[in-house]
Amino acid sequence: MYFCPVIDRFKLHIASKFQNFKEQKLLLAFSGGLDSRVLLDLLCQLEIDFSVAHCNFDLRADASEADALFCARIAKQHQLPFFIKKFDTKSFAEEQKVSTQMAARELRYTWFDELKEQGGFTHLLTAHHLDDQLETFMINMGRGTGLKGLRGITTDKILRPLLIFSKNEIEQYANEQSIEWHEDASNAQDDYLRNHLRHHAILQWKAAQENLLQQVTQTFDHLSLAQEALSVVVDIFKEKHFRQQEDIISISLDALMELKPLAYYLHALFETYGFNHVADLESLLVAQSGKQLISSSHRLIRNREELLLSPLKIETQGEEFTWTPTQDLTDPIKLTLIDKPLNSANTAVLDKNTLKYPLLLRKFHEGDYFYPIGMKGKKKLSKFFKDQKYSTLDKENQWILCSEEQIVWVVGQRVDTRFAATPETLNPLIIRSH
Amino acid sequence: MYFCPVIDRFKLHIASKFQNFKEQKLLLAFSGGLDSRVLLDLLCQLEIDFSVAHCNFDLRADASEADALFCARIAKQHQLPFFIKKFDTKSFAEEQKVSTQMAARELRYTWFDELKEQGGFTHLLTAHHLDDQLETFMINMGRGTGLKGLRGITTDKILRPLLIFSKNEIEQYANEQSIEWHEDASNAQDDYLRNHLRHHAILQWKAAQENLLQQVTQTFDHLSLAQEALSVVVDIFKEKHFRQQEDIISISLDALMELKPLAYYLHALFETYGFNHVADLESLLVAQSGKQLISSSHRLIRNREELLLSPLKIETQGEEFTWTPTQDLTDPIKLTLIDKPLNSANTAVLDKNTLKYPLLLRKFHEGDYFYPIGMKGKKKLSKFFKDQKYSTLDKENQWILCSEEQIVWVVGQRVDTRFAATPETLNPLIIRSH
Repeated sequence: MYFCPVIDRFKLHIASKFQNFKEQKLLLAFSGGLDSRVLLDLLCQLEIDFSVAHCNFDLRADASEADALFCARIAKQHQLPFFIKKFDTKSFAEEQKVSTQMAARELRYTWFDELKEQGGFTHLLTAHHLDDQLETFMINMGRGTGLKGLRGITTDKILRPLLIFSKNEIEQYANEQSIEWHEDASNAQDDYLRNHLRHHAILQWKAAQENLLQQVTQTFDHLSLAQEALSVVVDIFKEKHFRQQEDIISISLDALMELKPLAYYLHALFETYGFNHVADLESLLVAQSGKQLISSSHRLIRNREELLLSPLKIETQGEEFTWTPTQDLTDPIKLTLIDKPLNSANTAVLDKNTLKYPLLLRKFHEGDYFYPIGMKGKKKLSKFFKDQKYSTLDKENQWILCSEEQIVWVVGQRVDTRFAATPETLNPLIIRSH
Repeated sequence: MYFCPVIDRFKLHIASKFQNFKEQKLLLAFSGGLDSRVLLDLLCQLEIDFSVAHCNFDLRADASEADALFCARIAKQHQLPFFIKKFDTKSFAEEQKVSTQMAARELRYTWFDELKEQGGFTHLLTAHHLDDQLETFMINMGRGTGLKGLRGITTDKILRPLLIFSKNEIEQYANEQSIEWHEDASNAQDDYLRNHLRHHAILQWKAAQENLLQQVTQTFDHLSLAQEALSVVVDIFKEKHFRQQEDIISISLDALMELKPLAYYLHALFETYGFNHVADLESLLVAQSGKQLISSSHRLIRNREELLLSPLKIETQGEEFTWTPTQDLTDPIKLTLIDKPLNSANTAVLDKNTLKYPLLLRKFHEGDYFYPIGMKGKKKLSKFFKDQKYSTLDKENQWILCSEEQIVWVVGQRVDTRFAATPETLNPLIIRSH
């Protein structure tokens, strides 16, 4: 089986692992690089319907434009619906204080989510291959992950049909089929760890153990099965013992205590609610009634012979203040009007003409959304907080500046695109938070 | 916790993971090398009772003798019961056609088993550490193993209390405490794969990821918990659904079919009975009644709405033949008398004076044992077959040459020490099997 041509193995793989492919609405993440170029080709060979999305991160000037044109040409040539978006990745990275790579990742997946929502796509396809997977495995292993993390790249809404192929095989196929592609220079340029593993540790490992990549495929399959088996067991327990009454889930202590090994199950049952410290959970089981743990999203209370699990409620505290920004504000927070922008999230540079006075200062409301600068899309504030790893307390403390109903500034964090000053803004309002 | 001195961490580790240490009868495998020397020291520091066993593989002439003397001295110095055995490792390796390292491993563990049986030891202690464990993990991963294999070094009858330490920490401790040790030159000298991983792939991995060894310890702990959770689930299923009636276990198909993912459970439930091919097991579930699978030790039959699992019985076929080796034999097998020994297991070089004619040719009997050459000890033939990975058919086909009740030659496989010619033998009998 291993020596079949790539196309036959791909066909078999799709038939056995992606039976519903033809009924799904697929969106291919297409950089124009070797991997996604080959995946596009294989999908076309199998006459699978899909659309193509290209992110232009604008990191390499003309080369980025050339990539974009190349992608458009390939899509047209295969008569595939084509989406493209250009990002100001560098600004976003600076704004967010993250690496260019992290910024590109966030921009990419946010846009893909938007496309999926708007275009009704059911699945995103990416061209990750076996070498990627082994790298991810090692990275996660070296971070002390558990079985879930070790499965490497997981598959749920993102499908990775090239995972059965090594980089070598993909390259060989491209050469044999005279497939052209653009070098993926920006792809993982600054991922030092991944590159270091690829070019040193894994290279040496491959040299030491024959057929390493084929063998680890087996390991991955076995681990996936083991993880699936455990998920099923955990789900069965939840179904049986997590008794939901309105907002509160009650779980019998006796049922929990029977689980073996307890540490495994405590982690598996409660990590999705934000409880990551098994030792804390173990203590709770033997603590006095009334003792509780708080995660970023939930409260877990020991109550007689049960645990009570409930979502934390963000209390809108009714604290609202108006402010006409012609002078500094000192209460409830300190906001200063300044002349020159400081390059920091503490400073909001707004277009005065877009604002309706008085502005409103208030706390988070369920359902809040805004248009964070650098992203151009709409984002739920709750999602934004989650991505920023806000604790419940953080959320409760966060002030939001609004113009009428619209969010102008998540104070000290992110300005809204609709109110942000542009180079053309004649009348900027610059506010600094302390 | 990580920065505590070695001795404190060891104490904590023993207290938390080896609670029964004081009630167990422990035997330390002691090479005199750094690792086992440090383990010996730590055990003494904690005033734990144990005995010491040293294998002299006689692979480095005087250096081997020096090691043995060193080990004896250290044991005496600490007033520890000391066992030592010298092996003819090279002859055994040639005889068995295995690497010196494999030979040493078999000799070592066979002797340890004997010692445990004779001395009533409950556990063997070895000095494997974290670096060893990571190497084993990678080796097994590159062999396509499952979760069980990935746990690296498992712990049941062999305890490895140094697994929490890296090689570096062990060496540092030895230096700080001025502990002397002998270099373990023969230890893993010819284990190319392990050494290659250690000196290249893992070195590079450590360079790429900070605190790699501490982090992978966490990964190992998580995997162990996951594996333990799965074992418990599998055991519960067996207890509930493997209904034993005399020799036969019946398992309801309905119960099996409810398991998810089926592939995982089929493997976990039946691999211990020698059924390793999940696809075969899956076919059996949907096959006609009467269809069966045979492993090296068991038979699994689909019988209406159940599977029947039964051990294969070795049928002693009552075929016995006598032979007076003054002329060649042609029936039931072909045995030729030759003049000069050939260097192969097909040839038995016997001491004629030890034999009582006529010899007896027969098949395996339950309870058979012999003294395989190169091992000096007694070995059950069933164990010998198992080690040689004999299938049931292999066992049934194996001829055994006996002198009265005693086994002379497992034909074509291994001569018995009691009848083997030595350099002093004046009257050799050389038999070749075809």
